[in-house]
Amino acid sequence: MLDNTPICAISTAQGNGAIAVIRISGKGSIEICDKIFQSPKLGKKLSNQKPNTLHFGSITDKDIIIDEVVISIFRNPQSYTGEDIIEISCHGSEYIQQKILQLLIKNGARQAKAGEYTMRAFLNGKMDLSQAEAVADLIASSSSTSHKVALQQMRGGFSNEITILRNKLLKFISLIELELDFSEEDVEFADRKQLSTLLNQIENLVNKLLKSFELGNVIKNGVPVAIVGHTNVGKSTLLNKLLNEEKAIVSDIAGTTRDVIEDIINIEGVSFRFIDTAGIRDTKDKIESLGIERTFAKISKASIVLLLVDASENTADIEKAIARIKNVINNKQKLIVIINKLDLINDENKLTAIHKILNKHLDKSDIHIEISAKSGKNIDRLIAELLNTINIEALNQNEVIITNTRHFEALNSSSEALTRAKDGLENNISGDFLAMDIREVLHYLGEITGQISTNEVLGNIFSKFCIGK
Amino acid sequence: MLDNTPICAISTAQGNGAIAVIRISGKGSIEICDKIFQSPKLGKKLSNQKPNTLHFGSITDKDIIIDEVVISIFRNPQSYTGEDIIEISCHGSEYIQQKILQLLIKNGARQAKAGEYTMRAFLNGKMDLSQAEAVADLIASSSSTSHKVALQQMRGGFSNEITILRNKLLKFISLIELELDFSEEDVEFADRKQLSTLLNQIENLVNKLLKSFELGNVIKNGVPVAIVGHTNVGKSTLLNKLLNEEKAIVSDIAGTTRDVIEDIINIEGVSFRFIDTAGIRDTKDKIESLGIERTFAKISKASIVLLLVDASENTADIEKAIARIKNVINNKQKLIVIINKLDLINDENKLTAIHKILNKHLDKSDIHIEISAKSGKNIDRLIAELLNTINIEALNQNEVIITNTRHFEALNSSSEALTRAKDGLENNISGDFLAMDIREVLHYLGEITGQISTNEVLGNIFSKFCIGK
Repeated sequence: MLDNTPICAISTAQGNGAIAVIRISGKGSIEICDKIFQSPKLGKKLSNQKPNTLHFGSITDKDIIIDEVVISIFRNPQSYTGEDIIEISCHGSEYIQQKILQLLIKNGARQAKAGEYTMRAFLNGKMDLSQAEAVADLIASSSSTSHKVALQQMRGGFSNEITILRNKLLKFISLIELELDFSEEDVEFADRKQLSTLLNQIENLVNKLLKSFELGNVIKNGVPVAIVGHTNVGKSTLLNKLLNEEKAIVSDIAGTTRDVIEDIINIEGVSFRFIDTAGIRDTKDKIESLGIERTFAKISKASIVLLLVDASENTADIEKAIARIKNVINNKQKLIVIINKLDLINDENKLTAIHKILNKHLDKSDIHIEISAKSGKNIDRLIAELLNTINIEALNQNEVIITNTRHFEALNSSSEALTRAKDGLENNISGDFLAMDIREVLHYLGEITGQISTNEVLGNIFSKFCIGK
Repeated sequence: MLDNTPICAISTAQGNGAIAVIRISGKGSIEICDKIFQSPKLGKKLSNQKPNTLHFGSITDKDIIIDEVVISIFRNPQSYTGEDIIEISCHGSEYIQQKILQLLIKNGARQAKAGEYTMRAFLNGKMDLSQAEAVADLIASSSSTSHKVALQQMRGGFSNEITILRNKLLKFISLIELELDFSEEDVEFADRKQLSTLLNQIENLVNKLLKSFELGNVIKNGVPVAIVGHTNVGKSTLLNKLLNEEKAIVSDIAGTTRDVIEDIINIEGVSFRFIDTAGIRDTKDKIESLGIERTFAKISKASIVLLLVDASENTADIEKAIARIKNVINNKQKLIVIINKLDLINDENKLTAIHKILNKHLDKSDIHIEISAKSGKNIDRLIAELLNTINIEALNQNEVIITNTRHFEALNSSSEALTRAKDGLENNISGDFLAMDIREVLHYLGEITGQISTNEVLGNIFSKFCIGK
């Protein structure tokens, strides 16, 4: 798996900039650069220079100067990949970037694959697998919370703790397996009480991490919020209001299906993904039924459902809309009924009628807010309710949070194996069965940190990185 | 003008990348970074470190870690701007880039203006003005020739020569002005013969540079080629063929007017800008007349006019097309008549008839080529003729080439002043008049290298740079 041939890639963002950085890593990187680098100081060789130093000079292809550059030298093992690394900081024209890349390839480097630098960092023991995965998350993170969680994970976050506990468990398994060698003598090298304590400790950590995934997922991918309501009910006015109140960033991204466009709004560092849906109506029209089915599918993916109703509509229609949405959502979803266009209502009786409907159909856990998207009335309450749905405190208290589905699955499997091992320990099962369960725990924990990994898993993980990282 | 307050900007291309570089330059830059940088080695201060060294650590906002970064230290005067410079190489998320930039501003740096780093490099004497201008050209250059010319200019190219001759002329002017102080004694401190030789030397250089501008302009902006012909005459087939033959890069760029789309094709390192035009027909239709007027305007801007005719059309139409285009182009423009769709013709008489028309209407300097855009026949000849129109040798012989209109204008003004000075010298005009003319020569030459500059000129030049350069 470990390949230390020199690789090269443009590591800065694509396009023209003031400067660009090209990175070369692997055995012989410095020597390759010596072939194409000329310092104003005659005879100066990069390979004779100290690590962590900067050098001005020219990149040349035979007699032709390609650019004037600054070169950074990092030496194995004190570098990102743990190998010798040269970084060429050149003028940022795409022409120059491509020229230098071609020149490096001509002189013996090969183009790096996606994520190959970080994979080498992992394989050379510069970081564990969960830390390596966090590097991609860090680059992709666009809100303060997703950035914070990715950085925490990259700096070792939970994986250090897992590694320590796993190493302790490794000692136990070797003792238990030693017992098996002496099975006829009925000895017990591994203290069962201490083992039980350790298994409990691991279980606590695993459960805490599993529990954090819900929040982690929300932080990484945003909180999915379905807005249900007809177009004239004030959806876009509401979204714009949320934006202005929060001075937040909105972007249109293509959703999972081609026709779903989502608005992403960052509120206090948390991304909310607003999924626009049509209302739900009774219909016998075949085509319209399809549209409504699609709305159902979108609603089912949301963790918050905002039902927007127009207070000026007739009461029967309002009741129908509320009854229908209650029918559709499940008990894990948060329902917020928003009575919009308060400003259009002067009639106290109308409001009383609406309240009656709300009391009749909504549960205790459901929320209703009367707002005016136009004037901004009660928008602050709506924001507070949105933030209420997530456990923002856990984040502020620097608790460890996992965001990665791969980790979640491995933790789930560890959890099951842990339960078996604990049961076995309690019921005094034989050492070989106990060893089997513990080996499984070790395996799944090791998958998270990468102490257990296959080429396929690594290939999968790093192919999602960008080239140059 | 010289402002050395610390400035900061993202210097790599916009967007997410594996890494990004943020640059801080000016007095106190290193101290500002010390406020937000923490090294794993406790108490390590960047301000205590040697220049041209690299340092790993974290950027922190109070207790919150923003990112793990590598810092490059450059110290005045050994840096791009001639000031203290810190470069922060961080993870390439836009979130992190913005956060670090905000943090630097919070700690006393200000956002750099477009081209401000390079302007400081000029003001601190790290490069002259024409070199500074070449930095922007270098980043913008997208063909091997434009890259070569920009790099040559950035490395001092013609401006060194101008500076040397200008300095010599400066000595003469002081001698002449000294004479004026002793005007009643009729002394001559400045040797008129030597002065005449120097003026001739300068004139030679100025003329050579002025002459190079035609080529320089073509290299920088591409050779404008108008293709005249109806849509079904094979224009797109021909362009595609040129592309394939040359494995060249094409891009669609918006032209100067909204409705003109140009194809840029790099042929042997030279950019050709193909401007598509409709044919020219006689018409009384008002709207169509407008279209034809626009075609005339496009043709008038081209230095090469490709008239594409379909050999299978009737001979009278072919003759009309050729006669009309001859009527329109001027004698500075190169006409290439392309007889396309050779493959469709079996009739020898038709070809003879076409040749007769060509002989009748074309001049010696005009070129005609029979091709088949479909089969590729004679495309190589067409390419050779296109390249023939430019003096590619001058480029290969490393001759100095100017590409900048500002330089061209200053050289033109120097040339006029030089003529006056030389005339005056020949006619023995009085020292004070001679001094005036020479002062003018000095002024215009100084404008090129920036020894003479105004805030307005500098503002104009550097505002065209990107931010971060």
